Amino acid sequence: MVPTVEWKDGAVRLLDQSRLPETIEFLDCRDYQTVADAIRTLKVRGAPAIGVTAAMGVALGAQAIDAADYASFAPAVIKICDELVATRPTAVNLFWAIERMRRKLESLRAQPISAIKQALITESQVILEEDVDLCKTMGRHGAKLISDGETILTHCNAGSLATAGYGTALGVIRSAWEQGKKIKVIADETRPVLQGSRLTAWELMQDQIPVTLITDNMAGSLMRQGKIHLCVVGADRIAANGDVANKIGTYSVAVLAKAHNIPFYVAAPYSTIDLNTKSGADIPIEQRNPSEVTTIHGSHPVAPKDVAVYNPAFDVTPAELITGIITERGVFKPGDIASQFQSM
Amino acid sequence: MVPTVEWKDGAVRLLDQSRLPETIEFLDCRDYQTVADAIRTLKVRGAPAIGVTAAMGVALGAQAIDAADYASFAPAVIKICDELVATRPTAVNLFWAIERMRRKLESLRAQPISAIKQALITESQVILEEDVDLCKTMGRHGAKLISDGETILTHCNAGSLATAGYGTALGVIRSAWEQGKKIKVIADETRPVLQGSRLTAWELMQDQIPVTLITDNMAGSLMRQGKIHLCVVGADRIAANGDVANKIGTYSVAVLAKAHNIPFYVAAPYSTIDLNTKSGADIPIEQRNPSEVTTIHGSHPVAPKDVAVYNPAFDVTPAELITGIITERGVFKPGDIASQFQSM
Repeated sequence: MVPTVEWKDGAVRLLDQSRLPETIEFLDCRDYQTVADAIRTLKVRGAPAIGVTAAMGVALGAQAIDAADYASFAPAVIKICDELVATRPTAVNLFWAIERMRRKLESLRAQPISAIKQALITESQVILEEDVDLCKTMGRHGAKLISDGETILTHCNAGSLATAGYGTALGVIRSAWEQGKKIKVIADETRPVLQGSRLTAWELMQDQIPVTLITDNMAGSLMRQGKIHLCVVGADRIAANGDVANKIGTYSVAVLAKAHNIPFYVAAPYSTIDLNTKSGADIPIEQRNPSEVTTIHGSHPVAPKDVAVYNPAFDVTPAELITGIITERGVFKPGDIASQFQSM
Repeated sequence: MVPTVEWKDGAVRLLDQSRLPETIEFLDCRDYQTVADAIRTLKVRGAPAIGVTAAMGVALGAQAIDAADYASFAPAVIKICDELVATRPTAVNLFWAIERMRRKLESLRAQPISAIKQALITESQVILEEDVDLCKTMGRHGAKLISDGETILTHCNAGSLATAGYGTALGVIRSAWEQGKKIKVIADETRPVLQGSRLTAWELMQDQIPVTLITDNMAGSLMRQGKIHLCVVGADRIAANGDVANKIGTYSVAVLAKAHNIPFYVAAPYSTIDLNTKSGADIPIEQRNPSEVTTIHGSHPVAPKDVAVYNPAFDVTPAELITGIITERGVFKPGDIASQFQSM
């Protein structure tokens, strides 16, 4: 499996996901600004992967700070944190990861700067390793929901590419597959950025898990024909009441699943759960550049120039449409998320 | 308004819709095979436009037949009809238009060949003119359903480009607009062939009717936010029980509309109603080339090579999801279509 993000020779090495599947190319970020830009321009995307990358960005930025003591070092790190936090507004894992790095920094205030710098690198590595472990545990919990022979619909990419490895929704699918269940996957292409066709289909083909690509508007027709048995998607933020923000189009899939009595699951680690957000109505939804809709890959036009465009990156699926939320602690009803994760 | 199809200087002139909106280019078909190919490759599309074009294709092909009498002329015309009928399987207007040309031919069996040839051209012109008139009448009936200030979602292109002019679903919108109602249109881009972004958005912008383009997977989210008041789409075939085959994704829009209590209308002329098809289950659904999904415009890749693809061009929306069918005779409940159009 190609690593999504890693600390390599003093740089943050990212697989450039904006080039997939045509080109497998790595981007070595040697300063935190390049990391921030990679997050903004979707070279790395997926809530958990953004969290891990941002943590590494903080560690990377910290290395370059020339400071003799904590009093001058800490504000410079906080400035980096603030810049990285502002890259994208919806995925809460970003804020969670940076907050964790900030707390680590504070916990080390008595240490020499060189030791703090090293510890920040280590902390970002721990976040990465935890993410992989969480995904595998989540995968095992979720795999129990999948029966042999089933066809599973997924939307966007909640795979190894969206995490530090293994994946959330695709981690569940991967785990079922590794258990020998003969499953099939239907991947929504996920316009406008095509994470489903470019990333999910590619990732599953690499693992030789059977996948069929569809355009987003075909899911309903397949459901009506009885060809989809279960839906599983990732999440960018889960509110305290169990409402879920995820890639635009997720809500439509959930409504369609409900109308056809198909179970609809969300797979996400604890870092995606934001108990400070009461409900989905409180989740800020990022509006992105119209050119994502009017062109393909920013260059190939598919619409009239200057047409008005609505381009929200995410939508909110209300708790009542969600059968269960698959986490590393088990599978919960959306309404039970707050009580289960209160203590974290 | 740019004509979609016309008889011009002994040729069938088509606006090449596969080149829109970047290029406005006309294709002069000088033999019926070129017409058949234009239908197959979506240079002309939209059920009513296909019907008109096929009728002109029959007339065009007939001109080139070198025959001394009806006995040798008629089978040659029938052969052309058979070839044109096989170009696409779902839209019933194609079969209807060719059947009408065939009946015209038979009705003229006592006439000289030169007179029959001329009469076939005239008949195809009549079909074209009738289509424009039908659309305008339909538009007036449908416009009554639209209130001032409403936002209307449409899927695919059921506009002047899908007909001989004026449009079915967009004819309804156009008529409401011409009545001075301040309406807005949301256009689904309609993957994979992007008739919504390339054609509907373009067509409405030409008429300065306010239009906002979205990807297909955004409609649900907009409905949940109360931003869509009514949906109107075209149809490729309406079965006797009121089930409607239309562009893939129509079914999802209808399910979403139902879930949000938004009226969902279908606009179509009598030539789209097929009383010989009992229900939607009996409508053949065309499966098209995977390259429509894996590439943009056949050249720009957006998915891994050799990925499995499901690419149905249409889906079926059951009668119970349809608020009303807008026809040139008025607006009917889907269940009343058979009795209303029995005599045609």
